[in-house]
Amino acid sequence: MRIAIDAMGGDHAPLEIIKGVLEASQILGKEDELTLVGDESVIKKHLSDLEATTSPIQIVHAPETIGMNEKPVESIRKKRKSSIAIMAKMAAKKQADAIISAGNTGACVAAGQLRMRNLAGVNRPGISVILPTFGGPVTICDVGANVSCKPINLYQYAVMSSIFSTEVTGIERPRVGLMGIGVETEKGNDLVKKAREMIESDPNLNFTGFVEGRDIMNAACDVVICEGFVGNIVLKLTEGVVDGLFGAIKKELVIESKELAEKFGPVMKKIYQKYDYHEFGGGLLIGLNGISMICHGSSKSRTIKSAVLACKELVSHKVNDKIVEYLSNSTVRGNGE
Amino acid sequence: MRIAIDAMGGDHAPLEIIKGVLEASQILGKEDELTLVGDESVIKKHLSDLEATTSPIQIVHAPETIGMNEKPVESIRKKRKSSIAIMAKMAAKKQADAIISAGNTGACVAAGQLRMRNLAGVNRPGISVILPTFGGPVTICDVGANVSCKPINLYQYAVMSSIFSTEVTGIERPRVGLMGIGVETEKGNDLVKKAREMIESDPNLNFTGFVEGRDIMNAACDVVICEGFVGNIVLKLTEGVVDGLFGAIKKELVIESKELAEKFGPVMKKIYQKYDYHEFGGGLLIGLNGISMICHGSSKSRTIKSAVLACKELVSHKVNDKIVEYLSNSTVRGNGE
Repeated sequence: MRIAIDAMGGDHAPLEIIKGVLEASQILGKEDELTLVGDESVIKKHLSDLEATTSPIQIVHAPETIGMNEKPVESIRKKRKSSIAIMAKMAAKKQADAIISAGNTGACVAAGQLRMRNLAGVNRPGISVILPTFGGPVTICDVGANVSCKPINLYQYAVMSSIFSTEVTGIERPRVGLMGIGVETEKGNDLVKKAREMIESDPNLNFTGFVEGRDIMNAACDVVICEGFVGNIVLKLTEGVVDGLFGAIKKELVIESKELAEKFGPVMKKIYQKYDYHEFGGGLLIGLNGISMICHGSSKSRTIKSAVLACKELVSHKVNDKIVEYLSNSTVRGNGE
Repeated sequence: MRIAIDAMGGDHAPLEIIKGVLEASQILGKEDELTLVGDESVIKKHLSDLEATTSPIQIVHAPETIGMNEKPVESIRKKRKSSIAIMAKMAAKKQADAIISAGNTGACVAAGQLRMRNLAGVNRPGISVILPTFGGPVTICDVGANVSCKPINLYQYAVMSSIFSTEVTGIERPRVGLMGIGVETEKGNDLVKKAREMIESDPNLNFTGFVEGRDIMNAACDVVICEGFVGNIVLKLTEGVVDGLFGAIKKELVIESKELAEKFGPVMKKIYQKYDYHEFGGGLLIGLNGISMICHGSSKSRTIKSAVLACKELVSHKVNDKIVEYLSNSTVRGNGE
């Protein structure tokens, strides 16, 4: 299996990325080929510093880099020699079975859409991420690829994310919930009402109806479907509330007693480890003809290692073949919606 | 001032509602008249049980009740003698300066829209709530009245919630943020891009641009604007994450050491008190010609007491007059949007 990783993307690139790839390479077999894409001299220098010049990791030189705040489509069109653009081309030409980047998410989405094609039967790709919640792992799709969804997109996200959830988290017949603002059928906007009817009409999905914001953390379902605008807010808000609350607790504990605060430290660490989103590596740009994984900008080496291992799973479990097969048998069509 | 309170609405009605009204009446002056709306015999029985038959609280009999899961518009049309319908009529006829309910939110919104009129210049009312965050109180609008907003609605929510925020939390020139998925102007859906232009074109608003999910809890701005579908998810998700995290911490602490768990209890309580959304009573159905406050279904007596006091502030600060005056001077128009 050939997996290409963007050495230049993310807040801790290139060092943490390269370290993560080295960690993954020690776990993978000889039949797996890992390729770092980025500035060759920089990568070589780091490999040398890490005393890993004899590692079997390949390098593909990319002289350009796309910054975190560059405009996605524009940057991909202009910077054809950037690591993200080159990787998308490698995936499109089947020179890589999977590509991974912790760089500019929008640029990764744009590169996928411009250079790779959609899977047969898929109208628009979405991003599926696994959120470790207090009730178990919950897959959320879309968290930002498609900000203006049509009902058919949400239906297809339900199909694709169900398959994704089964293959990655091992949940058989995952319960699919549609993000809404009340469980009653008449609540919500036009998009979710129409999407609900479409998803409901497919007896092969294990659909549980609308779910509300407070249900996500309880894992009231295994897969949550929403449009990218909503999903992105859900993801970032969750991060903000968790960080904020831990901060508030720390502050309050220090006021109460320093000793208590010190004792609470390890507990906090344990919780962080248990509900650590780094564990799943990144989100899958699902619906593309290829595997493109997008990691958090703050990815550390263990995130990248996890992402590489997750990609190996996704490719070897033939997730994309399963999606194509499912959709070719589905009678649900968008009719312009 | 005349304030009417729904005795029948909420998970803890009527007891906690009646207790809250009694608590408020002890704080308010003689010029303020509190009226409980609901089943007269039930209310009288509770007042008697609470040894408060000599209290100056009025009762308006409402023989019908709208359940938490009844369809909003339908229930208001059919149950004209329900507490919610009667209160909306009292507000419309100016028999009450403010009305308060912890009952079916949708029915409260529908009653307001059907029976009361919008303020001059307002296209659609929204619900403004104050969220106590780690950086101070943040006003969010809309959290569920209007699930399919037009840009002009969001502009008007920015105006109304700025005034609301100033009058209730005392923040001069509150910083207004528009809920988005990235701070760059090109990020987001059509709605927020157009709304952004409208809000930006009004120099009297202290607009700071897009805010992301993780910014809310840091109080990166004082007022957050979004459509009702998004705001409702934000509110319920925040609740779910906070509850879930506290639950996870408790569980982990008990595993670690029972003694540590016991010591952590009071700290948790303090944090709950500090970031207690009951403190602000409820959300204001803002944009109506009258004051209609909607409280959380789980409202306890202190929530209702806070809501009554908040209503008094809103009426005496002439929040609605200020909104009408602002909008009459604004040159921002919707043009069908």
